[in-house]
Amino acid sequence: MRVIPLGGMGEIGKNLTAIEYGDDIIVIDCGLKFPEEEMLGIDFVIPDVQYLIDNKHKIRGIFLTHGHEDHIGAIPLVLPRLCVPLYGAPLTLALVEHRMLDTRTPYKPSYNNVQPGETVKVGCFEVGFIRVSHSIPDSLAIYVRTPLGVVLHSGDFKLDITPIGGVEGTDLASFAELGKEGVTLLLSDSTNSERSGFTASESIVSRTFEDVFRRYKDNRIVIAAFASNLYRASQVFTIAARFNRKVMLVGRSMISYVELARKLDYINVSSDLLITPQDAERLPPNRMVVLTTGSQGEPFSGLVLMSKGEHRQIRLGEKDIVVISATPIPGNEKLVSNTVNRLFACGCDVIYERDAEVHASGHASREEQKILLNLVKPKYFMPVHGEYRHLMRHSQLASEMGIPARNIFVLQNGDTLELDPSGGARPGLRVSAGSVLVDGVMLGEFEGSLLRERKELSESGILAISLVIDDEYRLAAELQIDSRGSVYGFDRGNMRPDIEAAAVSALENVRAGAVDREVLATEIRKKVRDVIGKNYRAYPGIMPLISMIGTGREARPQEGAKRTRKPGRPRRSGNTKKPG
Amino acid sequence: MRVIPLGGMGEIGKNLTAIEYGDDIIVIDCGLKFPEEEMLGIDFVIPDVQYLIDNKHKIRGIFLTHGHEDHIGAIPLVLPRLCVPLYGAPLTLALVEHRMLDTRTPYKPSYNNVQPGETVKVGCFEVGFIRVSHSIPDSLAIYVRTPLGVVLHSGDFKLDITPIGGVEGTDLASFAELGKEGVTLLLSDSTNSERSGFTASESIVSRTFEDVFRRYKDNRIVIAAFASNLYRASQVFTIAARFNRKVMLVGRSMISYVELARKLDYINVSSDLLITPQDAERLPPNRMVVLTTGSQGEPFSGLVLMSKGEHRQIRLGEKDIVVISATPIPGNEKLVSNTVNRLFACGCDVIYERDAEVHASGHASREEQKILLNLVKPKYFMPVHGEYRHLMRHSQLASEMGIPARNIFVLQNGDTLELDPSGGARPGLRVSAGSVLVDGVMLGEFEGSLLRERKELSESGILAISLVIDDEYRLAAELQIDSRGSVYGFDRGNMRPDIEAAAVSALENVRAGAVDREVLATEIRKKVRDVIGKNYRAYPGIMPLISMIGTGREARPQEGAKRTRKPGRPRRSGNTKKPG
Repeated sequence: MRVIPLGGMGEIGKNLTAIEYGDDIIVIDCGLKFPEEEMLGIDFVIPDVQYLIDNKHKIRGIFLTHGHEDHIGAIPLVLPRLCVPLYGAPLTLALVEHRMLDTRTPYKPSYNNVQPGETVKVGCFEVGFIRVSHSIPDSLAIYVRTPLGVVLHSGDFKLDITPIGGVEGTDLASFAELGKEGVTLLLSDSTNSERSGFTASESIVSRTFEDVFRRYKDNRIVIAAFASNLYRASQVFTIAARFNRKVMLVGRSMISYVELARKLDYINVSSDLLITPQDAERLPPNRMVVLTTGSQGEPFSGLVLMSKGEHRQIRLGEKDIVVISATPIPGNEKLVSNTVNRLFACGCDVIYERDAEVHASGHASREEQKILLNLVKPKYFMPVHGEYRHLMRHSQLASEMGIPARNIFVLQNGDTLELDPSGGARPGLRVSAGSVLVDGVMLGEFEGSLLRERKELSESGILAISLVIDDEYRLAAELQIDSRGSVYGFDRGNMRPDIEAAAVSALENVRAGAVDREVLATEIRKKVRDVIGKNYRAYPGIMPLISMIGTGREARPQEGAKRTRKPGRPRRSGNTKKPG
Repeated sequence: MRVIPLGGMGEIGKNLTAIEYGDDIIVIDCGLKFPEEEMLGIDFVIPDVQYLIDNKHKIRGIFLTHGHEDHIGAIPLVLPRLCVPLYGAPLTLALVEHRMLDTRTPYKPSYNNVQPGETVKVGCFEVGFIRVSHSIPDSLAIYVRTPLGVVLHSGDFKLDITPIGGVEGTDLASFAELGKEGVTLLLSDSTNSERSGFTASESIVSRTFEDVFRRYKDNRIVIAAFASNLYRASQVFTIAARFNRKVMLVGRSMISYVELARKLDYINVSSDLLITPQDAERLPPNRMVVLTTGSQGEPFSGLVLMSKGEHRQIRLGEKDIVVISATPIPGNEKLVSNTVNRLFACGCDVIYERDAEVHASGHASREEQKILLNLVKPKYFMPVHGEYRHLMRHSQLASEMGIPARNIFVLQNGDTLELDPSGGARPGLRVSAGSVLVDGVMLGEFEGSLLRERKELSESGILAISLVIDDEYRLAAELQIDSRGSVYGFDRGNMRPDIEAAAVSALENVRAGAVDREVLATEIRKKVRDVIGKNYRAYPGIMPLISMIGTGREARPQEGAKRTRKPGRPRRSGNTKKPG
């Protein structure tokens, strides 16, 4: 048996783990990742699933722990190439369906609803589900009874027993029961393995919100949160109703998540609590709450448009209080910080990360990770979901909890863990794995060279030079020069003589036989780069485009011309020296 | 009298404030800022000092609070244009001198050493200095006795009374004395105005280091810190000596700061404590400490090279413990995080930000800011050094301390605060201010358009097309095409026919008179963009370069040719239709 993580190891995002025994494979999660800064122009990243494509006849299904993008986001691109059934809780599957529509993927998946407590038999596996708390409802841990024992995948989880009033939290008893049955391998969420103590309960946030509603009773209240955090939305609705305020939703994803959750009965909100922008105009500010996207400072999100004074309905001012009910995801710090600066500049008051308890993380901190390890008592342990440092800290913790170091496996994407019938476990052969960068609607391995080129362009710009030369390597037309992002406007005009001199000198070298014709472009590149660097302190990429006329080469017929042109006559100038 | 911040307002960095009374101006600090991520290819940013250049006959001197880049870094570029004397503590001036040499600025400044307690008369001003603690020795607050009362600039400060053993900390008594004399206006450091409580004393770090040295007594210890934090270096030397370890310095700036500090007697370290890489090879790992740059994950810094296995002398492994004795500056989180991941991957243990007390900030937290306000009791208050949110939080704090809101001024760069003889204060007319982006050694206002171009290039790449056309607007040579960062390699070959067709169709439009010759390039751009977008889902910038042959235009003589070429004869093809 092999456990094969194809994503989520050494990174936050694009989670995907396969479990393989004989002719059966099941896949847990199929997520995307948002691009690193240096991935210029890339929209998102999905796991390389070549291994699954090569073995798709074996795959019995994809099981989903919950509906966040980093767990379901790659499905519209991956599922049509695998054609296997999907299993997940109702909200999770509804979000997949929404995403399929949104990306206009025509493929129709086979959706299979599952519930905590239930088990599903697929191939040689029996798959079961345990309710866990996370920052989205319907989150599950998934366990797999295999011929070689139980493999338990925690999914994203925290131990929160009281996510919000009336909703059940993590089912500790089921974990304990599974621990009693015996767990061969635990894969557990490492995201917060650097945080000591316990993660706050989601219901803490209600108390903070109540304080804010009391303190700012004369102000309009704007709350920014993750659209997918329906617990947070639910709390806002409850408290708004209690304080006799109406709620206006802002942001496309906020509106569609709430709509979906209402349709599926995950949120109970009476229709008259929600108001349209038109209603809002008739209400005094202190009778309303705005619940908006933009807690990560995303460009074009509700809160960011408001902070820039560009939102159509909401104009912020001194009578407003903004609560950013989220912490910045690593990489988003600057976006959030800029948004806070702009909000202050609008004159409103802002409550954000430094001001305690407007947000609770969705991931278990170290003490919770310990509790899971203690309840489950796995023989083998594999930290998942995290950068290398998170995985390392989590494995150190497992080691402190008494799991022998030889039974702890920190894997990378594409590594495999082999379990054998005698009860042993060891790293196996690697399978193909990696990242597929998705640029717009384009699917396919985005070439590293393109990114390298974009990076070079972004740092020093580009200078294109077009040379028309005759068959004696003389300029036969005026040099054409254009540049982007490289040279100051006032220098652009001046540099023509320098470039011309460089090009002419390169041509002379060809004529003199000092360089081969094939290296003419290289020679021009080098000479132009030198002179531009020296005279203008600019180091753009140089792109010479060389057209030959007066030779057979020019004689491509034009599609547009009515008749074929005759091959051009060789042009001769006064100098008759031939190229060497 | 006017107080004119030209940098450091609404931003972290490029601090520069001018105080003007009649014909006298003094300047406090002259720093640089490191570029935002979107400033592609920019090395650093300095304040626009046009106002100072226009008034340079009035400037009596630049006074420096301390030697950090964000306070002195713009001097090599600004001072030669102002030619005014510099005043600062010895270490500060030594660092300026070092920077002048480093940037090969030939200008020789007039350096004037000052000491805490001393006062200097320049023009109508009397300038005095108060010792403050910060993360570099010789930090000063600067007060200016003006005809309209005392203006006090805190510089960067924390209240730390025990920076490290034997060194004196912030001189609270002098602030109290000044408060008694009466302070009209306080300008105070806002960097940490979001942090409640007190900033830890630098000497706390000694205790943590001692713990580390005890705990890891069999390991090689690697400590990464800011090179300019000479207190930190000093603590490492003291503890290393006590634990009988030698210290190896790694990183050009670490070596040069320590060298400078030793020369000026800011660090007392016996020569035999410091070892060369050659010595280090002969020492057992547990007899040495490596003190290195790279605490911010800077590319090519000592620690980063080590983490990549690319450092010439130090190869990290399981027997090593790395201490990152710094917190990431906003914007550097990802760089630091990647470095930590790589260090774990080397097999070594890492102690970093989450693991308390390996670092103490250099800036006052809220309780300390309160104490300064309380000692100084200024009539007017202006928060400085911070993004807008920091300035706002600091001004809220001043307001809570009893300063009336009308006496608190949150300014932007280029705003002025006018103080009048009757004791009033109000915002005055703005002066010219802004950012000068410095790309390499180039000085001058970096054009926004260049940045825009680089951003476009970085997101979608570029496609250059060279067309040679005759005087009847027909292609007279094969189309030349080149692209960077836009189209996949396997598509690059395929797109030629599409581009040719687009170009030919544009040419036909010209011939048909449907478009003017001047708009040919625009037409080609549009048609090529459309076809590439449609067929390859790529949206590069299009750069057509059009050469005309067979007209007078081509007849530019080549510098390299021995005799002047005759003007080329018009070329005729079968089609004789004239352009419209």
